[in-house]
Amino acid sequence: MAPGLDETTVFQPRFGSDGLIPAIVTDARDGTVLMFAYMNAEALKRTQETGLAHFWSRSRGALWKKGETSGETLKVSEILTDCDQDVLQLKAEPQGRGAACHTGRRSCFYRRADGERLSFIDDRRLFNPKSVY
Amino acid sequence: MAPGLDETTVFQPRFGSDGLIPAIVTDARDGTVLMFAYMNAEALKRTQETGLAHFWSRSRGALWKKGETSGETLKVSEILTDCDQDVLQLKAEPQGRGAACHTGRRSCFYRRADGERLSFIDDRRLFNPKSVY
Repeated sequence: MAPGLDETTVFQPRFGSDGLIPAIVTDARDGTVLMFAYMNAEALKRTQETGLAHFWSRSRGALWKKGETSGETLKVSEILTDCDQDVLQLKAEPQGRGAACHTGRRSCFYRRADGERLSFIDDRRLFNPKSVY
Repeated sequence: MAPGLDETTVFQPRFGSDGLIPAIVTDARDGTVLMFAYMNAEALKRTQETGLAHFWSRSRGALWKKGETSGETLKVSEILTDCDQDVLQLKAEPQGRGAACHTGRRSCFYRRADGERLSFIDDRRLFNPKSVY
């Protein structure tokens, strides 16, 4: 019997019915979660081929090379998958100014929820989004 | 004008058309990504009220208190949201034996993809899944 998805050594990423798989990007240096996006098969293929993170932009309906406009590319050092192979984790080294977020912050996860309020845990901008986009 | 989703201090999690929001769970101690799951509004409410991670199980179609069967509960210390508030990150302290994954491993992300092959980066089991489930 072939090993189940959780024990196999065959990479069989399970894209959803929309053709997408969620991808968590962490900083290869210290593990900080930088961003979260979706990949289709083509984005994953290009990421593996080029070593730079590519995603599928759901809002634009297009393949998206991360950093194409901003210069904030992500050099992928490792691609991990989870037990049932329906999520990916990319360990990446941020290039450019080191701002993975379109707001100019290092990470997209810069606010903490306390009840219904958010507080900023990182408000440092590494670039001015108005001058970049 | 009210600040946009990315600058507001109002927590307005944007659940998808299926009523779910993705949630990345990281270890509060060292930032390791432990697991990934989905929450509906009720799961988020119970997580905030109890301090223990709750999710929505898509396979079972039911609210799911993480660790209810295995004892591997997750004590949530912080809930972060991303710039456009459609993803959550839970920083959590694993309870029980410290195995967030149903396979008995610490993290669900225990394999690395190299082309079409996976290699195990963590093969240590903290419990035997056959004796737990």
